[in-house]
Amino acid sequence: MNSFLQRAGIALPIFQAPMAGVSTPAMAAAVCEAGGLGALGLGAENIEGARRMIAAIRALTGRPFHVNLFCHAPATAHRAVEARWTLRLTPEFARLDATPPTALHEIYQSFRGHSEMTAMLVAEKPAVVSFHFGLPDAGQIAALHEAGAVLLASATSIAEAQQIADAGLDGIIAQGHEAGGHRGMFDPDAPDDRLGTFALTRLLVRRFNLPVIAAGGIMDGAGIAAALRLGAAAAQLGTAFVACPESAADAGYRAALAGDAANHTIMTRAISGRPARCLANRFTKLGERVPDAEVPDYPIAYDLGKALHAAGKAKGEFGFGAQWAGQGAPLSRPLPAGELVRLLAAELAAA
Amino acid sequence: MNSFLQRAGIALPIFQAPMAGVSTPAMAAAVCEAGGLGALGLGAENIEGARRMIAAIRALTGRPFHVNLFCHAPATAHRAVEARWTLRLTPEFARLDATPPTALHEIYQSFRGHSEMTAMLVAEKPAVVSFHFGLPDAGQIAALHEAGAVLLASATSIAEAQQIADAGLDGIIAQGHEAGGHRGMFDPDAPDDRLGTFALTRLLVRRFNLPVIAAGGIMDGAGIAAALRLGAAAAQLGTAFVACPESAADAGYRAALAGDAANHTIMTRAISGRPARCLANRFTKLGERVPDAEVPDYPIAYDLGKALHAAGKAKGEFGFGAQWAGQGAPLSRPLPAGELVRLLAAELAAA
Repeated sequence: MNSFLQRAGIALPIFQAPMAGVSTPAMAAAVCEAGGLGALGLGAENIEGARRMIAAIRALTGRPFHVNLFCHAPATAHRAVEARWTLRLTPEFARLDATPPTALHEIYQSFRGHSEMTAMLVAEKPAVVSFHFGLPDAGQIAALHEAGAVLLASATSIAEAQQIADAGLDGIIAQGHEAGGHRGMFDPDAPDDRLGTFALTRLLVRRFNLPVIAAGGIMDGAGIAAALRLGAAAAQLGTAFVACPESAADAGYRAALAGDAANHTIMTRAISGRPARCLANRFTKLGERVPDAEVPDYPIAYDLGKALHAAGKAKGEFGFGAQWAGQGAPLSRPLPAGELVRLLAAELAAA
Repeated sequence: MNSFLQRAGIALPIFQAPMAGVSTPAMAAAVCEAGGLGALGLGAENIEGARRMIAAIRALTGRPFHVNLFCHAPATAHRAVEARWTLRLTPEFARLDATPPTALHEIYQSFRGHSEMTAMLVAEKPAVVSFHFGLPDAGQIAALHEAGAVLLASATSIAEAQQIADAGLDGIIAQGHEAGGHRGMFDPDAPDDRLGTFALTRLLVRRFNLPVIAAGGIMDGAGIAAALRLGAAAAQLGTAFVACPESAADAGYRAALAGDAANHTIMTRAISGRPARCLANRFTKLGERVPDAEVPDYPIAYDLGKALHAAGKAKGEFGFGAQWAGQGAPLSRPLPAGELVRLLAAELAAA
């Protein structure tokens, strides 16, 4: 375990979750400077955006950092499904004096098989690279290993962890069902055993001879200490950082996180096309009545979801935001990221 | 915390879950003798059965033990729902050369308002009494407190924990979504935030000034150590004890627990009428396609479920059993209960 952290050059067993759209270079750099592992979510970025984010964090810290890529199967367009879904949400747009987009697009590309993005990362050499929603090709893994990166991937099940181990990665992020944001399931349509952080972490630690990073519902030093007791090499916290001033979360998201919605997070596919845990809001409410098959593929559905959120925000309605949060949300503390990491470290030392 | 265990007279922070139908006086006594808190599930017993179980454990140990009662709202009979449900399962009976019962009954009574059962407990004076599915009346709580019992109840949410605290109980069993068997929700038809053990334990510890006992997905000493780090006063383990020789689990249940089904537990309402986590089997498969409203009230549905299981067993088909198990099931160890507690204590000391 500690050899794993040493290899990655990290002092504390505290990982800030990448959180595409929420984490920022300023947040990640502050975490790194405080001794944790800061992370950038590059899954929704094109090469230029990704390179810019890496440059931005490098301008703020010389410490190792972590970048995360999405390795989902490319979306399949089903025009009829997309048209019906758009039609279904049209009344919501209408209530906001808006109209939905006339066509939905695959708004970003999977990292799997993305050779230009791979070449950029090989050139930039981030210390830690992780994958969500699946794994890249063997050639990409070899190239990143060759470039010296420590490679991790999210698993929500023993079967996914086995694929990660078989692919020769260096560690497994055990993403429990409590976790906020997108569930890393390789196949969103496969049956989901919904393993909680407690059970999943222990199962993976006992089954695999790889470092396990526990994620989901961990909000404070006691939680980190508990994850380490389960045999995790580190704990990854996302929701704990959403309210930091460095976060890109908007005012509506911050207000929801600070309010009663934090007590009721919902796993929904309606916002993006993949299951993701969100603070209870208008969008999750709408999603409760929707069969999975009616939602277009990820991230095509997200194109419409983002348009609806934009239409809402223009009218002061924040209830259609992708307000991702885990089940520990009520324990959120709105502190600067570096201060939060120092507090977590002190709590961990005291636990 | 330790004052809580001291008050209850327990050496180790290890509670064996009551598990009606699975735990036995021999199991509970062995746990008590090894320094843990053994428990009897009395929820499905009448007064005579409950008294007999208490006498049986008293014959085996002089240590404090724990008895659990069900405090569900009394079932409402809906003849049409019951008839439709029976009709729906009739082909399953037919495949087993059996016929379903002609009427379904409320096969046991809630403890809530059950004055004779209360009087029996007041006379017998078990050290610890816990409640599942809700709380008894204030008068029952006062009588049991008067008799010296430490009173606990299961909570699956902050709201339920608040009711437990408001009722003046002495501790809260935080039952995470990972947990096997019946989910302790006070109202099975209320929205369920499905809080995992990790998040729920920490939320309740932070919110309430009462001892919290963590339950769900805890299978070994590392898990117990993690629960204590989350601030729990003790950990309650159920699935860990199912494979003990003292358990009442039948051969089919033990075989399922030792096999691949352990990797796939399912929350189902089809077996008993209330959500309960079960090893994936024929009954959970059948339940996947059933809307909640089609299943009769608990425990009326259980009358049919037990009849179907009996019909199956008569033909060597164990797939209709109430094979309750939590998400940690793959970590089950078939050891005698006392030996298991000593091993857990050693693992906890080492963690």
